[in-house]
Amino acid sequence: METDILVVGAGVLGLSSAYYLKRGDPTRKVVVVERLSGPGQGNSAKSEGAYRNLFTGEANYLLADSSIDWFHHMQEDMGYDLKLREHGYLWLFSDEQHNTNKAALEAMGRRGARTITYDEDEIKEVIPDLMMNFEDDEEAYILGLEPIEVGVFGDKCGSLDADALVRAYEKEFLKLGGEIHYGTEATKLLHEPTEPLGIPGEPFVWQDSRIAGAETSKGKILAETVVVAAGTWACKLLDPVGFDCLLRPKKRQLFSFKDPKLTRLINTKGFSDENTLPLAVLPTAGIYLKGEATEGTIWLGCADELGRKFELEDDPQPEEEYYSNNIYHALVQYLPCFESVRPMNSWAGQYDVNSFDETPVVVPAPGLIHVGASSGSGIMKSDALGRIVDAVYEEDEYATLYGGRGFRVTDIGLKKRRVERETLVI
Amino acid sequence: METDILVVGAGVLGLSSAYYLKRGDPTRKVVVVERLSGPGQGNSAKSEGAYRNLFTGEANYLLADSSIDWFHHMQEDMGYDLKLREHGYLWLFSDEQHNTNKAALEAMGRRGARTITYDEDEIKEVIPDLMMNFEDDEEAYILGLEPIEVGVFGDKCGSLDADALVRAYEKEFLKLGGEIHYGTEATKLLHEPTEPLGIPGEPFVWQDSRIAGAETSKGKILAETVVVAAGTWACKLLDPVGFDCLLRPKKRQLFSFKDPKLTRLINTKGFSDENTLPLAVLPTAGIYLKGEATEGTIWLGCADELGRKFELEDDPQPEEEYYSNNIYHALVQYLPCFESVRPMNSWAGQYDVNSFDETPVVVPAPGLIHVGASSGSGIMKSDALGRIVDAVYEEDEYATLYGGRGFRVTDIGLKKRRVERETLVI
Repeated sequence: METDILVVGAGVLGLSSAYYLKRGDPTRKVVVVERLSGPGQGNSAKSEGAYRNLFTGEANYLLADSSIDWFHHMQEDMGYDLKLREHGYLWLFSDEQHNTNKAALEAMGRRGARTITYDEDEIKEVIPDLMMNFEDDEEAYILGLEPIEVGVFGDKCGSLDADALVRAYEKEFLKLGGEIHYGTEATKLLHEPTEPLGIPGEPFVWQDSRIAGAETSKGKILAETVVVAAGTWACKLLDPVGFDCLLRPKKRQLFSFKDPKLTRLINTKGFSDENTLPLAVLPTAGIYLKGEATEGTIWLGCADELGRKFELEDDPQPEEEYYSNNIYHALVQYLPCFESVRPMNSWAGQYDVNSFDETPVVVPAPGLIHVGASSGSGIMKSDALGRIVDAVYEEDEYATLYGGRGFRVTDIGLKKRRVERETLVI
Repeated sequence: METDILVVGAGVLGLSSAYYLKRGDPTRKVVVVERLSGPGQGNSAKSEGAYRNLFTGEANYLLADSSIDWFHHMQEDMGYDLKLREHGYLWLFSDEQHNTNKAALEAMGRRGARTITYDEDEIKEVIPDLMMNFEDDEEAYILGLEPIEVGVFGDKCGSLDADALVRAYEKEFLKLGGEIHYGTEATKLLHEPTEPLGIPGEPFVWQDSRIAGAETSKGKILAETVVVAAGTWACKLLDPVGFDCLLRPKKRQLFSFKDPKLTRLINTKGFSDENTLPLAVLPTAGIYLKGEATEGTIWLGCADELGRKFELEDDPQPEEEYYSNNIYHALVQYLPCFESVRPMNSWAGQYDVNSFDETPVVVPAPGLIHVGASSGSGIMKSDALGRIVDAVYEEDEYATLYGGRGFRVTDIGLKKRRVERETLVI
């Protein structure tokens, strides 16, 4: 088979890229291959679908903020039910943490993110279940838990249905005449001379060479450009051609809870019209949880760092013990309503971690565009990243993000990358 | 066993770090473990031992320039025969390449690197074997070879005996009372709570934790700090604890030649007192070669990028075909004296490539310092990196490089990294 553009991966980044590439010029042939049987069945489906525009780096802010606006447009104007729930984000800090993060919070404000600061009493009032300090609590003291003294709430933050988003991009792409082959695994990128001489052993080191397509489980596909949007699996394709995927895979787990003891917490009022607990980040251990008022559940995760291995797993599994004999010890101190509550459900996916600056990459090479390394924020930045892939393909200097803001595509490339580390420290 | 500092790896970075850590305070117990049977037997031994102070980034320049001064000090004042040969570097460019790289060359000059520019005639005069352009040569035209129109020569560049350097650091370290265990492989880093509670399952996510030593093939070694200086093997230790090694391994090969046809080339005069061919970089395909007048040989390598896989190999092998049916086609056009000359010897090692900014890292985490990702320039920056490891250990803001220049250690850390990509493009 031959195509103008081959997109590897029908996760959210692959389908968003495919959509914008096709929209850029519907006469282009754009083919998506995906090893799984449907869209977003890799890590997209395993995401909690949370989004936020709270980033200290300008690139991350623009990518997320404009994508959030697009999600609203998709739901409100294009008729897709993405189940957008703008419940907000709530960072819970000790005074010390809040001071440490002052500059980071100010940077977010400069970008354009709105935040509201709550004091201890105000937080306690809206979330009465929350234990704020542990001065007289020997066990919490032993655990070394940070007190909650300040809350910082961001309003342009929430959750969406990742599956619905992926299917919306799929539908729009197909409407324009795009082609998707599920159950088709790209196994190897083709590395060929730009101008073949017909001599065995090509491409030689002295030849200009390019990525010219991919071998797949259903045969060879020749392409003018291959877009690798394979998430954590990207390295399996890129390592063999010596192109750095700029990411490492790390498992992240989610646990959901449904229990009468949690009813008040789930139905937390006062933060948003959603009348549910915002995505709240506890001041210890990167534990976060959010309410899902419509299904009457709490979702909970933990951003564990040192000690959580980097390793590509095809089917990562949640660890029951990770909740019951680890997170739980600290969680139940902050939220005694979790006492004896067991997860109703749990699942695991993998982050595509870019440790250098925690900002996604869209990096071209001859015949190739690699999009990914989103460090777990691929869904919330998916719309902007798809537009940037199209701009890189068109060799434009700027991509136009939803809402009209321009984005210099080299800012998240490699050679002229504008490096800004995310600086919020929890 | 217990120690203050455990250094994993007795390559050049491990031994330089061990030496400066011990020199910083000889009462510290510093133990080095190395899986191989002697110093520098991993990739250090497989390096060509070339060095240069020609870098566009300030960090890279300072790391190399000060290390080169130190190598002279070791040889001239400390009595080590490092076989320093300051034969220079010679970049051969087309006019177009030279123009593209003007800003990069100016940046090098601003840093302090001295360069001399040669025109076509001057190069031809000193290297009569070199074919400069291929206007009338059909085969070279088909090969798409760039003409040689400009040469840029750097004088503070040369070669040293990597094995002698590694043994010099080893000797100095042992003199101060350092301890080295060869044939001892660190198999796993110990990740433990900073303040253990004695509960099964520690460290929990809510606990402060640290690297507390390593399991080795000869038993457990507890350490206050572990310095991972394991080159391309670092990821095998760091991935399991979820700490990004920030590098990917890529094979590089060297070929040596001894043939009467090469005599004139080997004994190239006019560039340096070494009266040999400087390390000359051809304008196509990243092929480079240098003369070794004392042994009467030419060494040759190639910095192949796209198409050369990333993969950790314990014992990478040179590929005869890579020379004879690949590099050779282009080489013999530039240097017809190579006609029918076969390599006398060949070997292969691995670069520890940092694709983000091609600058080494010295990154701390609790109980851990990772030094590496030198992108093949570990030897020429080894002295500065050892000093920086000691400064990081001492929690100093600045390291003092040889010669007295200060170096802010966070510039090559992660969180406050000062990112400057190397910009010379060949």
